[in-house]
Amino acid sequence: MNDYSRIFLGTAFTSQSKTEIQILKDYLFCIDENGMIQNVVAPEEKLYTTLIYEYKGKDNFYRLPEGQYILPGFVDLHIHAPQWAQSGTALDLPLYEWLHTYTFPLESKFHDLAFAREVYNDLVTTLLANGTTTALYFATVHKEASFLLAEICAQKGQRGLVGKVVADDPEQNPDYYRDLDAKTALVETEEFILDVKKLAKSTKQGVYPVVTPRFIPSCSDEALQGLGELAAKHNTHVQSHCSESDWEHGYVKERFHKNDAFALQDFGLLREKSVMAHCNYLEDKDVDLFAQTGTAIGHCPLSNAYFANGVIPISRFHSKGVDIGLGTDISAGATPSLYDNAKQAVVSSRMLEDGVDTSLPPEKRGVAGSRITINEAFYLATAGGGESLSLPVGRLEKNYAWDVQIVDTQAKGNRLPIFDEKEELYDVFQKMMYHVKPVNIREVWVQGEKVHSN
Amino acid sequence: MNDYSRIFLGTAFTSQSKTEIQILKDYLFCIDENGMIQNVVAPEEKLYTTLIYEYKGKDNFYRLPEGQYILPGFVDLHIHAPQWAQSGTALDLPLYEWLHTYTFPLESKFHDLAFAREVYNDLVTTLLANGTTTALYFATVHKEASFLLAEICAQKGQRGLVGKVVADDPEQNPDYYRDLDAKTALVETEEFILDVKKLAKSTKQGVYPVVTPRFIPSCSDEALQGLGELAAKHNTHVQSHCSESDWEHGYVKERFHKNDAFALQDFGLLREKSVMAHCNYLEDKDVDLFAQTGTAIGHCPLSNAYFANGVIPISRFHSKGVDIGLGTDISAGATPSLYDNAKQAVVSSRMLEDGVDTSLPPEKRGVAGSRITINEAFYLATAGGGESLSLPVGRLEKNYAWDVQIVDTQAKGNRLPIFDEKEELYDVFQKMMYHVKPVNIREVWVQGEKVHSN
Ligand SMILES: [Zn+2]
Ligand SMILES: [Zn+2]
Repeated sequence: MNDYSRIFLGTAFTSQSKTEIQILKDYLFCIDENGMIQNVVAPEEKLYTTLIYEYKGKDNFYRLPEGQYILPGFVDLHIHAPQWAQSGTALDLPLYEWLHTYTFPLESKFHDLAFAREVYNDLVTTLLANGTTTALYFATVHKEASFLLAEICAQKGQRGLVGKVVADDPEQNPDYYRDLDAKTALVETEEFILDVKKLAKSTKQGVYPVVTPRFIPSCSDEALQGLGELAAKHNTHVQSHCSESDWEHGYVKERFHKNDAFALQDFGLLREKSVMAHCNYLEDKDVDLFAQTGTAIGHCPLSNAYFANGVIPISRFHSKGVDIGLGTDISAGATPSLYDNAKQAVVSSRMLEDGVDTSLPPEKRGVAGSRITINEAFYLATAGGGESLSLPVGRLEKNYAWDVQIVDTQAKGNRLPIFDEKEELYDVFQKMMYHVKPVNIREVWVQGEKVHSN
Repeated sequence: MNDYSRIFLGTAFTSQSKTEIQILKDYLFCIDENGMIQNVVAPEEKLYTTLIYEYKGKDNFYRLPEGQYILPGFVDLHIHAPQWAQSGTALDLPLYEWLHTYTFPLESKFHDLAFAREVYNDLVTTLLANGTTTALYFATVHKEASFLLAEICAQKGQRGLVGKVVADDPEQNPDYYRDLDAKTALVETEEFILDVKKLAKSTKQGVYPVVTPRFIPSCSDEALQGLGELAAKHNTHVQSHCSESDWEHGYVKERFHKNDAFALQDFGLLREKSVMAHCNYLEDKDVDLFAQTGTAIGHCPLSNAYFANGVIPISRFHSKGVDIGLGTDISAGATPSLYDNAKQAVVSSRMLEDGVDTSLPPEKRGVAGSRITINEAFYLATAGGGESLSLPVGRLEKNYAWDVQIVDTQAKGNRLPIFDEKEELYDVFQKMMYHVKPVNIREVWVQGEKVHSN
């Protein structure tokens, strides 16, 4: 007699490699009481019939209806949670104005916990509804509101990794919105880390504190140094922005006479559990340093189109062995959906490959070998995200968490364009990647628990 | 006593110019029995109170609930209707394979009217649900199935402009899917034109036949010449593809020793009611010819990322006075939504401005002055589309058709991130452009009739 907490019978898609999709047609997924996948059973296995015989008809046996499929939940590696309140606005402004007229004034409002609660509740709910089961968040400089975000993730069942933002440099940050000084920032960060670690103990799916210098230009040397030490002391995740734009890349070079990556490394901020957003301007030696230290890249293709001044060469970086996942970068990216970002990752890579300026001859326009496929974009949104965070999520395999989205291709309001009952499953997969909207995401599960249904 | 067929009270957004949005807060829109806007009345006008007094409480007085807004319906200038059945698939393949393994075999199946009916019914319904009130379609080479698409538009209330595709060159088209010869193609095209004109007489919103050579490479000289003559004789719209990719641009130059635009002009295919898809490689003289002849550009930003090898310089072309609208280009563009394409038009323009190859210095990377704003993208999706087709649609002004979408920012399943009751209406507008999904589109009206509700 087997003793699984839940068994799911359905067709699923998961990454076999960075470029290949594995199609698990009518498989059984056996989940244990900790919400981990204990067994994945193919129809041709002997155990398959035994399990169906044992579990069929029971409350904990779930058979997917016709037209529904299982995908791993998505892993969003870069979200500015407070900016959800302005998502979609002001993207036509230059970065400086965007920051000082919209973003900093908005983030400063998060000292108000009632406002923070309203926005964060809505954001976490929305992300779950979009299939995002794991999310790596920048909150604000406010310790209490940042902790509230972690509590909301804990309560709603999302695997939340949350950072209290550090931004202490009085030159680079407005007086109304920054840490008082480096020392205060470090004390509050350590308190935040301990609070979240305590919260994690009562949270099945886990919540995680993240050491979060906004980016080098926002922080004093003292703060950066102290944050690196805190990350080591408490073995936390680390997140920041790295070599995002021409401006930032240049600023760090001028201040430290080295590239962003090496400056972060000097402060102890490149670690196995580090994720750096953007990274469009990494040079080869920077990428090697990322690979050596286990630092991952959070690729934010939509945001990059607005503020990064160029396309990150994902295909080239991937070939150097660095971990890469996807981020929405709310609100520089104006969608809560990693489907949207997966599609844009493909589109941007095609534009890098072919180039953009039609007045140039083809051979001078683009960068050969840059394109990625929808399979690779799916990898970035799932397995790549899990690897980036060093967490067992993003794959439908034994010893991974049961973090999944159940997609209904026939949902009223957005029936997918499937007109052939015998449509190839790989074509169904591609149609899902291009067409799924929240209305199609029937259920979302995290760590074996249902956290959203529709 | 005024005698309007319907009156709407609500806040609306329409283009004031290519770059500016006009916000009509709590205006009255008075519609006559032909479905045309007869009057647009501001709250400060004397007539406003009179009209509300006369119509309030009547069946034909519509007051928008809180959180709902009126936008013009969208105008989609380029859709391959049969390709809806494969939307989302095979985009990682090279063009030749995409055409010969997927697209031509699929289009050839539309000799089967039952299959055509199923796909076309679903497509037209889906486009309406996405806010597209006017659509310019390529059907297939099959006359009957093409006419069926026109009938479905007529019946569902969409303003459909439909072309029976002509592709007669045996060298360039597979034997299983082409016109028998030029003569047959021309006879069938003329029959199709007459059939659709007859159907239009009983169709309130209008349906229109469109002369549709697939593109120069698909057609013999005889067919192209004859199609130009048919367009003149019956004063129809014309559509084709023009200077889409390096390959096509080069092919036409080799065959005719001139650019695509001038070759089309020689065949009488550039006319006031002509719309050419893509046009990424137009040179200045080509753009001038477009402006002189009244030929418009159907800009398909998502499709272009896959198959056009470069970004069309919309901003530069606009400054030369040519009409431009947006197209989904289903299925080279894998979404039925012009919202998605409006967003991508902005993103692509930013990538053209900033360039893509981060290994180049900023000044060598992009093309200064290329970016467009979300306002301009909205213009392309609405007023620009109407101008391109020389039809009175795409604006909320007197003597324009009442073709609108009513957007609910508070729809269950996709409540927009609006947390401030006093949010600026321009910010609400931007949030709509970035976040609206079909679930938010409560009602769609064409020519004064409700054609979709949700
Ligand atoms: Zn960021
Ligand atoms: Zn086309």
